[in-house]
Amino acid sequence: MQFPSRLIEEAVTEISRLPGIGRKTALRLVFHLIKEKPETTQALATALQRLRDNIRFCVHCHNISDGEVCSICSNARRDRSLLCVVERSSDVLAIENTAQYNGLYHVLGGVISPVQGIGPGELHIETLVQRLNHGQTEIKEVILALSPTLEGDTTAFYIHKRVKDLPVKVSTIARGIPVGGELEYADEITLGRSIVSRTQFS
Amino acid sequence: MQFPSRLIEEAVTEISRLPGIGRKTALRLVFHLIKEKPETTQALATALQRLRDNIRFCVHCHNISDGEVCSICSNARRDRSLLCVVERSSDVLAIENTAQYNGLYHVLGGVISPVQGIGPGELHIETLVQRLNHGQTEIKEVILALSPTLEGDTTAFYIHKRVKDLPVKVSTIARGIPVGGELEYADEITLGRSIVSRTQFS
Repeated sequence: MQFPSRLIEEAVTEISRLPGIGRKTALRLVFHLIKEKPETTQALATALQRLRDNIRFCVHCHNISDGEVCSICSNARRDRSLLCVVERSSDVLAIENTAQYNGLYHVLGGVISPVQGIGPGELHIETLVQRLNHGQTEIKEVILALSPTLEGDTTAFYIHKRVKDLPVKVSTIARGIPVGGELEYADEITLGRSIVSRTQFS
Repeated sequence: MQFPSRLIEEAVTEISRLPGIGRKTALRLVFHLIKEKPETTQALATALQRLRDNIRFCVHCHNISDGEVCSICSNARRDRSLLCVVERSSDVLAIENTAQYNGLYHVLGGVISPVQGIGPGELHIETLVQRLNHGQTEIKEVILALSPTLEGDTTAFYIHKRVKDLPVKVSTIARGIPVGGELEYADEITLGRSIVSRTQFS
């Protein structure tokens, strides 16, 4: 594609590095920004820059935070006996939006993936063990909320191995038929698990 | 949605102002940027800022340009007897990509739309008339390449009225069945026009 301006070409190149945005969409966004007031672009560029320069991670749970300790870890009304282990900060957000969980979190920063060269050392597993191992810990249960993939399961097994001798209960989130899902379209593994892990009818 | 950080909320708000990007997609992009190196965000923010601060418009055709005169107007190999009138710079790009046109352009900057309060005075119509009216003009034909909408047609009629006494031919791009389109799915107006404006079989 021939661009009328070098500036447009540069902007399109940078925007199309974002996931799910191709060069055509990027060009449409660029034309939109040119049509709008300069302040719109200014505000966008500043917000991105400020985000990346100033974003911090909680020293306890490694979740995204505005300060040293995140708003969840510093909230006195959260249940300090529960710790939910997730892969990414976006998972924390997803669980928070369910309004069904009131404990604390621990963000691993990824899952063990030999293919991508990510071992346990690259993840926040040591600090997790420290949080549980600490003499004065209040944590009674660790809930593993990892993706049901090979990597997620590997990570769950590894964490279980590391913490199984500590005085904490380890659980994982339930696998089963999604709410609103139809039985006949569920895969056999999910359907099988939903039968094995059946719960009392209430 | 509850965000873990004010910085994320600001970035999501600004990104979701872009057309076709909602808050969920914006959040996904934000998490992507946080995961990537700071230089990625830096390059994106800088490219956007530079684009909006330094973008210029050609003094002749009002197309987007790096300098005072755009690369098309300053190209000696373009046919200076043809002038194609379009709504936006993105239309110039679309026509250029066909590689079927070698004349000059004139970008109106929009179409007449009483609903949106856009009259002929808001568009680059005066400079178009000046380009055609000028004693030494080389332009022999004006091609109106506007959208086939009420606003586009109104604008085409207005321009025709303004230039019909000048010694230039006025034409519009052909309306008809798109290449690869099936007859039975075409609307009646398009199909009707394609019959009225039939061309010699070659």
